[in-house]
Amino acid sequence: MTSTDTSAVVAAGYDPAKPEEAVAAAVARVSRWGRWGADDVLGSLNLLTPAKRLEGAACVRTGTTFSLSQAFDMDGPQSGWRRRTNPVHTMLDTGREALDGVFPHGIGGADDVIAMPLQCSTQWDGLGHIFDHGKAWNGREAADVVTSGGDAVTGIETAAAHLAGRGVLLDAGRVLGDDRGELPDSYPITAEELDEIARVQGVEVRPGDIVCVRTGQYARTRREGWGGYAGGPAPGLSFTTLDWLHDSDVAAIATDTWGVEVRPNEFEVAFQPLHQVAIPHLGLFLGEMWDLDGLAAHCAADGRYDFFLTAAPLRITGAVGSPVNPIAVR
Amino acid sequence: MTSTDTSAVVAAGYDPAKPEEAVAAAVARVSRWGRWGADDVLGSLNLLTPAKRLEGAACVRTGTTFSLSQAFDMDGPQSGWRRRTNPVHTMLDTGREALDGVFPHGIGGADDVIAMPLQCSTQWDGLGHIFDHGKAWNGREAADVVTSGGDAVTGIETAAAHLAGRGVLLDAGRVLGDDRGELPDSYPITAEELDEIARVQGVEVRPGDIVCVRTGQYARTRREGWGGYAGGPAPGLSFTTLDWLHDSDVAAIATDTWGVEVRPNEFEVAFQPLHQVAIPHLGLFLGEMWDLDGLAAHCAADGRYDFFLTAAPLRITGAVGSPVNPIAVR
Amino acid sequence: MTSTDTSAVVAAGYDPAKPEEAVAAAVARVSRWGRWGADDVLGSLNLLTPAKRLEGAACVRTGTTFSLSQAFDMDGPQSGWRRRTNPVHTMLDTGREALDGVFPHGIGGADDVIAMPLQCSTQWDGLGHIFDHGKAWNGREAADVVTSGGDAVTGIETAAAHLAGRGVLLDAGRVLGDDRGELPDSYPITAEELDEIARVQGVEVRPGDIVCVRTGQYARTRREGWGGYAGGPAPGLSFTTLDWLHDSDVAAIATDTWGVEVRPNEFEVAFQPLHQVAIPHLGLFLGEMWDLDGLAAHCAADGRYDFFLTAAPLRITGAVGSPVNPIAVR
Amino acid sequence: MTSTDTSAVVAAGYDPAKPEEAVAAAVARVSRWGRWGADDVLGSLNLLTPAKRLEGAACVRTGTTFSLSQAFDMDGPQSGWRRRTNPVHTMLDTGREALDGVFPHGIGGADDVIAMPLQCSTQWDGLGHIFDHGKAWNGREAADVVTSGGDAVTGIETAAAHLAGRGVLLDAGRVLGDDRGELPDSYPITAEELDEIARVQGVEVRPGDIVCVRTGQYARTRREGWGGYAGGPAPGLSFTTLDWLHDSDVAAIATDTWGVEVRPNEFEVAFQPLHQVAIPHLGLFLGEMWDLDGLAAHCAADGRYDFFLTAAPLRITGAVGSPVNPIAVR
Repeated sequence: MTSTDTSAVVAAGYDPAKPEEAVAAAVARVSRWGRWGADDVLGSLNLLTPAKRLEGAACVRTGTTFSLSQAFDMDGPQSGWRRRTNPVHTMLDTGREALDGVFPHGIGGADDVIAMPLQCSTQWDGLGHIFDHGKAWNGREAADVVTSGGDAVTGIETAAAHLAGRGVLLDAGRVLGDDRGELPDSYPITAEELDEIARVQGVEVRPGDIVCVRTGQYARTRREGWGGYAGGPAPGLSFTTLDWLHDSDVAAIATDTWGVEVRPNEFEVAFQPLHQVAIPHLGLFLGEMWDLDGLAAHCAADGRYDFFLTAAPLRITGAVGSPVNPIAVR
Repeated sequence: MTSTDTSAVVAAGYDPAKPEEAVAAAVARVSRWGRWGADDVLGSLNLLTPAKRLEGAACVRTGTTFSLSQAFDMDGPQSGWRRRTNPVHTMLDTGREALDGVFPHGIGGADDVIAMPLQCSTQWDGLGHIFDHGKAWNGREAADVVTSGGDAVTGIETAAAHLAGRGVLLDAGRVLGDDRGELPDSYPITAEELDEIARVQGVEVRPGDIVCVRTGQYARTRREGWGGYAGGPAPGLSFTTLDWLHDSDVAAIATDTWGVEVRPNEFEVAFQPLHQVAIPHLGLFLGEMWDLDGLAAHCAADGRYDFFLTAAPLRITGAVGSPVNPIAVR
Repeated sequence: MTSTDTSAVVAAGYDPAKPEEAVAAAVARVSRWGRWGADDVLGSLNLLTPAKRLEGAACVRTGTTFSLSQAFDMDGPQSGWRRRTNPVHTMLDTGREALDGVFPHGIGGADDVIAMPLQCSTQWDGLGHIFDHGKAWNGREAADVVTSGGDAVTGIETAAAHLAGRGVLLDAGRVLGDDRGELPDSYPITAEELDEIARVQGVEVRPGDIVCVRTGQYARTRREGWGGYAGGPAPGLSFTTLDWLHDSDVAAIATDTWGVEVRPNEFEVAFQPLHQVAIPHLGLFLGEMWDLDGLAAHCAADGRYDFFLTAAPLRITGAVGSPVNPIAVR
Repeated sequence: MTSTDTSAVVAAGYDPAKPEEAVAAAVARVSRWGRWGADDVLGSLNLLTPAKRLEGAACVRTGTTFSLSQAFDMDGPQSGWRRRTNPVHTMLDTGREALDGVFPHGIGGADDVIAMPLQCSTQWDGLGHIFDHGKAWNGREAADVVTSGGDAVTGIETAAAHLAGRGVLLDAGRVLGDDRGELPDSYPITAEELDEIARVQGVEVRPGDIVCVRTGQYARTRREGWGGYAGGPAPGLSFTTLDWLHDSDVAAIATDTWGVEVRPNEFEVAFQPLHQVAIPHLGLFLGEMWDLDGLAAHCAADGRYDFFLTAAPLRITGAVGSPVNPIAVR
């Protein structure tokens, strides 16, 4: 049984003992299947229009940049669950071979390789990453979409040019959290709280925005070590924010946690039910394990919470997600 | 002996038979060691200031985006040289497992992994990628900088937040090339030609810009197959452009070819001598295997050749390069 | 249309235009489903009994050993088909870091990693490697047996302790081939020829043996380069040897070619039809890309063609094949 | 400071506070540099002669086989130290794609790949794995032998045909251990105890043997989980057994533990000092993480402790170690 506060899901009329019913009820209200035609592969990225990029570019006032990426190395949080390891980066040649004389006229070079799960560190969940009862985004059969050959329909490469626009930070840690600006694990952030954060910060969330929700959990891991960061307890979005995600028409949402939604989930015997609706039904790109701390400090300092955000997935054909180094320009 | 026209290097006073002397002579003129202090790890990225990002943001007029990334898949150009393979992307779970009942309430998921050289497709060469006589950027000993553990000093993570700014396209293929807008292999593009392209296009290259030079070779491979794209003959920068790269104070330069510079190189028994100066001495980030074709077509259509460019390397600790999906916003 | 001589399949009553019918007809005669019970996972390895190992041990007369493995490195024959690359072996630490002082009292160490397809070089095909019309060994549903999680039933680990016994070399290259002891590509070796080779060599093939058929093609690649070794034309077993493989009750069969059977296959528009019967219906382990040349030279020298053979697959849980270094002791 | 009993090293005249001196003293007595010539790459494998294989073959009495390999999968003991992960095995195609119609006449196939450290599970340490003050086997400079390109001199491929011969089990767990036949962690096994085990078991250790020492620690992990199996406390050989290893002229030694020698080591601030002498000075192949439990139970049942052992490393060019599936035939 979940140890997370279930009052939000109860207030929304869901039974914490019946996640499958809750998912179905949410889907009935928010599913976007067909909204952009039967052939659509972009989902919520349709909301990230060229006009949004003009809006994003207008947010650039100082030219200061922030990488919102955590590190990709063996010191990461992965511990093998679902065969997810930390990235293994090795050298093919090094500076120690620089004078070995393989190449002419004194040139030397170093090359490297990496082996990693695409879900190991800062990432986008693509539309082929999660299914609801065997259905992928837009109502397609998951079994037809994602085979051993990869995602033949909604592979991350289809999104390659899209993820640039207006970013908005909602610093839940600072507005709702403790003195350090951190929320405790298992804290479900509700839709009302998202609105309250925006109000306190004086920023407006608009259709097509890429919303970054900082909980402060990642900051805590810097002091305390990873612990259960990859899959364990975490603050995060309440299941009940699905309507907010739908109604606000945001293009994507990212957090500084492993899995966007609150953990443990707000249902008994449940696993990421918000994903189950958000990805296949809302067609929503979810960003996970982002580092929002440096950006948040600057936003707090000058009171501006929007910025130009580019978060370009690698163009890996057929991938259901991608590592990413999101760059915010203020 | 090179089959490439050597007239440019000869005119510049270099002896095509003596690449080592040519490198030394160029270094004597253009080396920037110490320019940003002995501890500097950014090299030419120091030129990409916040002001440049304001300048870049001002180039956004329609909000149209272009991914400048080639695909990352097994259909790429690599054939094993220096243990460089095409990326191997495999699935940990697929849509075919979506109904297997591992997870509760009907949720299903797909995960994936990748194994790839960091130099396999669209990429940045980091400052630890190339050495001159055992010296890395800023005069450091290559053997101290890049060990089997990776680049401990100038690892690509140090550049994670920097590569966003004003991009400028120089479409050498269209201005200098054939009816299709393509230059032939072995065509060395000179500094004078770079200036001529800018003039014809009506665009100014300024300090701190990220310059993208389109040769048209990648477009040709779409029709004709990869052939020797990875390492074989190619149009590209003449060795003599090193002074232009130095004097123009550009922050980075990228091409649609495997190796930026003309291939075969303009010297007998030579291998990428421009790299040997540009990376360790100019501290210049080189972008390789970029797809500039879609962007170039739009630039040609409306006559504007500058844009906001974000080309964020993955934050791989200690990497000497990184795959990248550059996003141009016009 | 195949360029291979089809007279053997025609003589056996098959229509070269109808491989699917040929497969069905062969299956009707030779299928072993149920022979060792419904739960069996070993197939023909059931024939490799402890008594066979006594028989094998009795073949050891001089104690001379031969590794029957080709190399595992980037100079191998793979070119990317079906995402098969050559193995990428990289170092985590090297002798050049030996004095870096990470460890106490002067100890230094080197570690390494590998990324490779299990089918890249000398290998065993496990029973989960090939299916006939969606059926795996013993009549199981292939979709139930081999998922993204691997082969849950006949994973190669089930065979880990079995592959040691009496090996017999049939040197088709020397008996049937040219002066160099090599058969030409596209040469289908028939059952009659297998018997003839054994007769000429004075060796008896018995139930439970591991039979090694040398065609000489691998020897040719040493002179001429890989060419189409991985998947291209090759000498090999005729489809018509399926009855021989069945009737002889051999435990496994291996060749010095990429794919055991003759290539192109002896049917129009066909792909490895012998595999389609041998693996799922005979439950036969097929060894591919073995190096039989050194062993063969010694056998030819002293006229003895049997030996003790250990060909232990790596115990990779759920693998459908395995790299292997077979050791023959004479 | 070590928590391991240091009485054996003290009795042998070593100072537990001075491991570097102890290594030097041991080296002075046991080093074999030059014993087999300056060009030797085999070290102790020179002792594993053809005659030894005859001796080994004579041990085969029932033909029963035992795989001495632990599993290669994500449930292994690795946790990332020195970038060592558990092996990641993924499928390129599965049985679920068997009916997708890529191939003709109803054939379907599954392929797979693996990414793994060569030191992740049951393995051989090759002669390029460990160095003493920058020196590798036979006195070579480690920096010359093992570069980023691998071990150019003593790569594991040089041993490919050698590791088959007479195996002898010394069941330290049963003879010296508790009711379950297990030694406690930190238990240093001495030379006298090795001799005592052989005496109790009625088996003779002879030159050229491959000796397998079972401590019982691996059996304990089956009940209790991995815990610190990879690098943590363990029973194992005392540093003082180096003279026994030298004088006995064994060809190789393997244990059921992560690192052969007792952990913590018998010195203050020490790391694997027995390795530091055994590999570069004795030229000894060390086998680690072997599963000796099934074999040991059979040996205990009939009182015979020798067998034919084949432990063939994969022929990975330039590797400093190799995964292995050792097969014992009794």
